[in-house]
Amino acid sequence: MTYPLPLFTRIDHVGIAVRNLEEAIGWYETTYGLTVTSRETNESQGVHEAMLVVKAPDPGELGGSYVQLLEPLSDDTPVGKFLVRNGPGVHHIGYGVVDVTSALARIADTGVRLVDERPRHGSMGASIAFLHPKDTGGVLTELVQAMPRS
Amino acid sequence: MTYPLPLFTRIDHVGIAVRNLEEAIGWYETTYGLTVTSRETNESQGVHEAMLVVKAPDPGELGGSYVQLLEPLSDDTPVGKFLVRNGPGVHHIGYGVVDVTSALARIADTGVRLVDERPRHGSMGASIAFLHPKDTGGVLTELVQAMPRS
Repeated sequence: MTYPLPLFTRIDHVGIAVRNLEEAIGWYETTYGLTVTSRETNESQGVHEAMLVVKAPDPGELGGSYVQLLEPLSDDTPVGKFLVRNGPGVHHIGYGVVDVTSALARIADTGVRLVDERPRHGSMGASIAFLHPKDTGGVLTELVQAMPRS
Repeated sequence: MTYPLPLFTRIDHVGIAVRNLEEAIGWYETTYGLTVTSRETNESQGVHEAMLVVKAPDPGELGGSYVQLLEPLSDDTPVGKFLVRNGPGVHHIGYGVVDVTSALARIADTGVRLVDERPRHGSMGASIAFLHPKDTGGVLTELVQAMPRS
């Protein structure tokens, strides 16, 4: 075993499927006083999204904890299909890791199937990868290696 | 407005419905290297549960971040009904607050209905309260005021 345990350093984010991103942002701002730190459109994942800060990164750490609001670009995207099937709600959980490539390899060694065999581009410049929810107790799970600050 | 914003200090936990608590604990230990810090049976919520540490409390803070695994005591409990309807997966999200009573009052002021009008006993001695998922974008949401350490 070459990867230090535990694998996770924090709960990076809760990914929440919403029908209307602007309305959802307004609701989180008004109800909980959270603020948006990043907005992006991720064409490959088929979403407009916003990250709202729950907890800023600790000193010396790269990543904090966020609410990630996800509005699908169309009904035939993963989040679009989720909304049609389930309505709005928690779509996935993202956990912070130090090194996504080695964390992915270690988890694959235990027999968990991967949605992403290799890390790809996530929110705020992070390297991310999804695990298969059929092998993770029904929880769509994302590993997040935060981008180094320049 | 008397309560400081933002309301949340951290993502306290992800509450996950499981069919078999011991098997789920074993899976989280083996796959992610997480360790159990607390086990309880909460008769009023109808669950056997375990808290696994994702991130220990920061110095000077009371609460950390956890995975909370929930096995229902029977099918007619809230988590039991969730499992019958949805299968295993994310059941709710718990956010850390400094003072659950005033946070609850502030959120109620915005028109969100409360499952718990008054705080009650949660995991590891915390004071907790649930908000109604019909008013929170489909996310069953728990407020968690961690217990002071003695």
